[in-house]
Amino acid sequence: MTAICELDTPCVLVDLDRAESNLQRAQAFADKAGLKLRPHIKTHKLPRFAQRAIELGAVGITVQKLGEAEVMANAGISDMLLTFNIIGAAKLKRLRALHDRVTIRVVADSHECVAGLAAAFADASKPLGVFVECDTGMGRCGVQSPEAALDLARAIIAAPGLDLAGLMTYPAAGKYREAAEWLAAAKAMFEAAGIALPTITTGGTPDIWHADEAGVATEYRPGTYIYMDRSQVAAGAASFDDCALTVLATVVSHPTTGRAIVDAGSKALTSDLLGLVGHGYVVEYPDAKVVGLSEEHGTLDVSAYPDGGPKIGEQIRIIPNHCCPVTNLFDQVHLVRGGEVVETVPVAARGRVD
Amino acid sequence: MTAICELDTPCVLVDLDRAESNLQRAQAFADKAGLKLRPHIKTHKLPRFAQRAIELGAVGITVQKLGEAEVMANAGISDMLLTFNIIGAAKLKRLRALHDRVTIRVVADSHECVAGLAAAFADASKPLGVFVECDTGMGRCGVQSPEAALDLARAIIAAPGLDLAGLMTYPAAGKYREAAEWLAAAKAMFEAAGIALPTITTGGTPDIWHADEAGVATEYRPGTYIYMDRSQVAAGAASFDDCALTVLATVVSHPTTGRAIVDAGSKALTSDLLGLVGHGYVVEYPDAKVVGLSEEHGTLDVSAYPDGGPKIGEQIRIIPNHCCPVTNLFDQVHLVRGGEVVETVPVAARGRVD
Repeated sequence: MTAICELDTPCVLVDLDRAESNLQRAQAFADKAGLKLRPHIKTHKLPRFAQRAIELGAVGITVQKLGEAEVMANAGISDMLLTFNIIGAAKLKRLRALHDRVTIRVVADSHECVAGLAAAFADASKPLGVFVECDTGMGRCGVQSPEAALDLARAIIAAPGLDLAGLMTYPAAGKYREAAEWLAAAKAMFEAAGIALPTITTGGTPDIWHADEAGVATEYRPGTYIYMDRSQVAAGAASFDDCALTVLATVVSHPTTGRAIVDAGSKALTSDLLGLVGHGYVVEYPDAKVVGLSEEHGTLDVSAYPDGGPKIGEQIRIIPNHCCPVTNLFDQVHLVRGGEVVETVPVAARGRVD
Repeated sequence: MTAICELDTPCVLVDLDRAESNLQRAQAFADKAGLKLRPHIKTHKLPRFAQRAIELGAVGITVQKLGEAEVMANAGISDMLLTFNIIGAAKLKRLRALHDRVTIRVVADSHECVAGLAAAFADASKPLGVFVECDTGMGRCGVQSPEAALDLARAIIAAPGLDLAGLMTYPAAGKYREAAEWLAAAKAMFEAAGIALPTITTGGTPDIWHADEAGVATEYRPGTYIYMDRSQVAAGAASFDDCALTVLATVVSHPTTGRAIVDAGSKALTSDLLGLVGHGYVVEYPDAKVVGLSEEHGTLDVSAYPDGGPKIGEQIRIIPNHCCPVTNLFDQVHLVRGGEVVETVPVAARGRVD
C-alpha cells in the first residue's frame, strides 16, 4: 500500500470511513423522517458510492446531466432522476436510449420542454416519468407558482408518452420552510383537481438535518453530504471532522515568513467561494488563510504562525469550499484510510457536462 | 463538416482565424520590441497551437506543471520553460527524465528548491538551466529583493549540475513599470558582481501591448493572448471581436421574462471572477448579464430585453471571464471557422495539475 506522504501533489484524498459514516447518518435520518433518499452523484461521480448508498437504503440516484446518467447506467445503476431540463434533438435521443435500458425520470418547467419530451416519447413502449420543477425560492429553474405547476402537469398527463411523476424542487439554502409551504400549497391544489402526485422530491445538503421539516415532500436528494466541505461547515451541516474530501498539496515556496505558496490553485480547489472568505481550510494549520488562488498556486497567509507554519516541501491537506467541482477537476481520487491509500480510482463521471 | 448549430452543448468553440490573428499580432509586436516570445500553453493546452506559435517565431513555450511539459514533449516540442518550483523526489525524477529528452529550464526562489535541483542533477550529463524567480509586485512566489536574487544565483552557479539561466518574473497586472524597475536594479547588481544573465523573462497578457516598456527584459511569456477573454477586454488588452474562445450553451429554461437559464454553469465557465461582476459576455445578447452560476446552470438576467431575449432551445455563445481554466474543464474543443466545425480535438494537456 502507498502511504499518503508518498503521493505526488496536488491530489484528492477521500477518507473512506468518513464517507461511509456520512452516508449512514443521512440514511438513518431520512428513515426516521419517513423520507426516501435519492442521493445526487454529482459530488463523488463514482459508481461505487452510488451503489453503496443504494445498499444502505437509497431508492436510486440523482444525476444532473445525461452524461452522468450514461456513466451510472453503464455501471449498473438502474433507477435515476435527471434533475435537468432536456432540450433539443441530440439530448432527447440520448434520453430515449437511456430510457430503453434503465428507469430514468426527468423534470420540466415549461411547455416547450414538455413538448420536446412528448414528441420524443410518443411511441415509447413505456411512458417517461416527468416531474414538474418548482421554483420555491432558489430563483433558478422552475415554474413560478402552484397554479403554473398544475397547468404544466396537465400538459404532461395529456401527452401519450409521458407520466406525471410528481413535483421536484431544489430549495435555496436555508429556505426549507418556504419550500415546504410552497409544496404544501401545490399539493392541496393538485388534490382539489384530483391529480395524484406519486412523489414530491426536494433536496440540498445545507438543510439536510431539517429534512424532517420538509412537509409534504416524500423524497430527499442530498449530494455534498457524502464528502461535506467548508461551505457545509459554515452552513452548520457538518464539522471539519466530518469532511471526507481533502486536497493534498505541497508547500513549494515561502517567500516571506507570513506567506506560503502551495501547488494547489484554482485547477485543484476551484474558485468557488459560496459566500465564504478564503478558499479552503488547512487541516494541519487551522489558522492559515488561503487568501488567493492562481491556476496552479495557492497563496496562504500564515502570519498567525510566528515561525512561518508549514515549511517548503511539507504536505498539507486543504478542505475546499465546495467539494463537488473539485472532483470534476481530477482524473482520479485516492481512497484512503488512516495514512494509507486503499485504492486509486478514476472519477468515472468527471467532465460529463452535457 | 458539422455546423455549429448541430453541436451538443455546452461545448467550447475556438475560432481559428481569431486565434491565428492573435498569435501573429503578438509575435509582430514582440519582434518590433526586440523581445523573444515564449508563449504559455496553459491557455490552450494544445500541441498544435504551441507548434504554430513556434512556426511564427516563438523561441519555445512556457508550461506551468510537469504534466504539461510531458504532454508537450511527447508532441515534439523541444524547448520549454517550466515556471514553477519543482519540489520533492517524485517531481525531481520526472524533471530529470524530461531533461534527458528536451531542453527544459526551471525556476527557483529558495535555497531549499535549489538544493533539491542540485542533488537531482549533480550527475547529469548536461546542466539544468535555472532562473531565479523574482517577486516584482505580484505577491506570489519569488525572491523579495535584487539582493536575494543575487544570493540565490550564487547558489545556482555553485551547484555542479545547474546553470544560471537568468531572472524570471510574473508581474502583477498593470504593474509592468514596477517590474521593469525591479529587474533593472537587479541587472545592475548582477553586472556589478560580474555575473551574466543570459535571459530576463517577464510575461502576462494584460500588459502585453506594453511589452516594449519591459526595460531590461529579453523575453515575454503571454498565455491568454491566443484566445483572449472578458478579463482581457476589461484590462484593455483586447476587444470582444478578438476573443477566439466561446462556450456554446443552450437556453433550457425561461422561468420569468427577465430570467433565462442556460446549460453552462461553473463546470463550463468556471467561477473565476478576476475582479469582474458577472460570469461572462453573451455574444448574441450583449445586454444580458450572467448573474449566477451553479455547477450546471447559468442564470442570465435578460431584463434588458422586453421580449425576454433568447428563447428556450436557442443556442448562445458566452465569452468567459477567464478562458484558461475553461479549457481545463473540457475533454475536447471544437476548432471552428465561420459557422462550421473544422476539427474537434482532445485538450491534450487538460487536467495536468501535477
